[in-house]
Amino acid sequence: MKKHFGEASVKFENPPTIISAAAIVGPKEGEGPLSEHFDKVSADILFGKDTWEQAESELMRQTVALAVQKAGLAIEDVQYIFAGDLLNQNSGSIYGARSFERPFYGLFGACSAMGMGMNLGAKLIDGGFADYVVANASSHFCGAEKTFRFPLELGTQRAPTASWTVTGDGAVVLSSKGKGPRITAATTGSIVDLGMKDVNNMGAAMVPAAADVIAKHFRDLNLPTNHYDLIATGDLGLYGQTLLLQLLKQEGIDIAGRLTDCGMLIYDLEKQDVHAGGSGCGCSASVFASYFLKKLRNSEINKMLFVPTGALHSVVTIQQGETIPGIAHAVAIER
Amino acid sequence: MKKHFGEASVKFENPPTIISAAAIVGPKEGEGPLSEHFDKVSADILFGKDTWEQAESELMRQTVALAVQKAGLAIEDVQYIFAGDLLNQNSGSIYGARSFERPFYGLFGACSAMGMGMNLGAKLIDGGFADYVVANASSHFCGAEKTFRFPLELGTQRAPTASWTVTGDGAVVLSSKGKGPRITAATTGSIVDLGMKDVNNMGAAMVPAAADVIAKHFRDLNLPTNHYDLIATGDLGLYGQTLLLQLLKQEGIDIAGRLTDCGMLIYDLEKQDVHAGGSGCGCSASVFASYFLKKLRNSEINKMLFVPTGALHSVVTIQQGETIPGIAHAVAIER
Repeated sequence: MKKHFGEASVKFENPPTIISAAAIVGPKEGEGPLSEHFDKVSADILFGKDTWEQAESELMRQTVALAVQKAGLAIEDVQYIFAGDLLNQNSGSIYGARSFERPFYGLFGACSAMGMGMNLGAKLIDGGFADYVVANASSHFCGAEKTFRFPLELGTQRAPTASWTVTGDGAVVLSSKGKGPRITAATTGSIVDLGMKDVNNMGAAMVPAAADVIAKHFRDLNLPTNHYDLIATGDLGLYGQTLLLQLLKQEGIDIAGRLTDCGMLIYDLEKQDVHAGGSGCGCSASVFASYFLKKLRNSEINKMLFVPTGALHSVVTIQQGETIPGIAHAVAIER
Repeated sequence: MKKHFGEASVKFENPPTIISAAAIVGPKEGEGPLSEHFDKVSADILFGKDTWEQAESELMRQTVALAVQKAGLAIEDVQYIFAGDLLNQNSGSIYGARSFERPFYGLFGACSAMGMGMNLGAKLIDGGFADYVVANASSHFCGAEKTFRFPLELGTQRAPTASWTVTGDGAVVLSSKGKGPRITAATTGSIVDLGMKDVNNMGAAMVPAAADVIAKHFRDLNLPTNHYDLIATGDLGLYGQTLLLQLLKQEGIDIAGRLTDCGMLIYDLEKQDVHAGGSGCGCSASVFASYFLKKLRNSEINKMLFVPTGALHSVVTIQQGETIPGIAHAVAIER
């Protein structure tokens, strides 16, 4: 296992290139500060469909198709599609990918899905198994509320620590050749559960997993703490980010000033009434596939660590008194 | 992509070895014809826990721990765990794997999960990313009924074409070294949906995907139809198997006499009142990790194609009038 380092990390011998990407979002995300960076903002939260679940699948289908088209490829050129979402039995990804008729891996890592897909996709390319792989993650506010929280029609008041599930999708096309930023290394997350039970504060539930994978990444690869220009977590939100800096400091890793969070970037936290910020598989995926990828391409960022974070509970386990396990996957991208 | 062949297949350069495996099942499976082959039959369907979901997680935890122990390893020696199940948000796998604190990939492919885990695990080993990988899949009759069908307390009558979800788990340890049968090739399935809507006949819904992946496997790798001693599908059941032979014949592939199905082997279809046979992620996983692996080890089988099959619907999508997409992954194992 010559490409394995330390506890949970790999370095790629021929770092796969992100040759293309696409991000499509819903209306609320289109009113946020990153609006201009997305490929498309849909004014219709149903994406022309009849149900929220169908809407998410259509969003997924459109985004993958656009990413592949922007790469100058046909879908038949893609060897594998990795996709994950939050709906029961990955319905968003599965019904979205159905029409592509391509080899398909469904992933479940909650909001860490994009990190898992990019991690595994890069491994398949560097391992000699594929030339083109798509990694995708999606979420839909209404579908997620229905799956995890309350019927929207109830108008339930939200807790100040709660996050707002992004209606959005991000897809990247990874390749063994071509031009673009490269995935140079990846650290695979373990399930970490410190006993958090508050489903209205998922940022706090995911922080220990984020701290764990970031600390392992630096230790495994023996990197100085200033190696990355930027470290972007998935959706820890306003409260989670502060906790993460504290936990990492205890490990001797000080990344203050270099840390940001996709969930805090996608909305205007002052004006958009989203409380702790954005969340959902589509949050980190759409922000990475638009905003960050542009910055990597135009040299505003040269090296970044992308760390999508996921809260792995289900309604049933929480009702049974279980705690919220977290996971995070770290993907290093360099120009 | 030197290891890629045809449309969806890979051949491994250094075929990963299945160095160890474990299978644990519930009481009903212990009364079936494969009873003696399982490592453990639990008389308690709750596996000492309070709920069915916790029971499945405990079953998963025990089975993975046993497979790793039988390999003479500690859990810390394992670089990656792949696991999938049927519960919403993969709860069976996630709460089961939590205590291992190892790099974790959650998979969703419904009952095809074991095929996906062995496929990806073998790729990570052959790609130089790991020395030891665990692939696992679990299911629990009561948890699956609650998730997909009716409350058990209703005593709802079952359709003759319905299958019985196996309470069971199978885990394999794959390695870059060591002795045992080897994973020589794999074909990754695409989502195939011919419009079946009957959730009481999932065999029929999965058959097109099984036919698709088996046909691609033979074509991609240019194999004669008598290459394998045995082709074992996951859980097509009594009705699905006949359909599969017909579909493959139309493709010019005649595997009559070589085809079997894990769902038809695990129960006594005459005596155990399971209608079309067994199903669930744990069905093919537990049958492979016990019965078939023994046959591979003692030369009763020299070459087999293992084809776990999955029905990718959710309760919500079916209620919305959607059809049942199927998927199947083919893994070639040779002595």
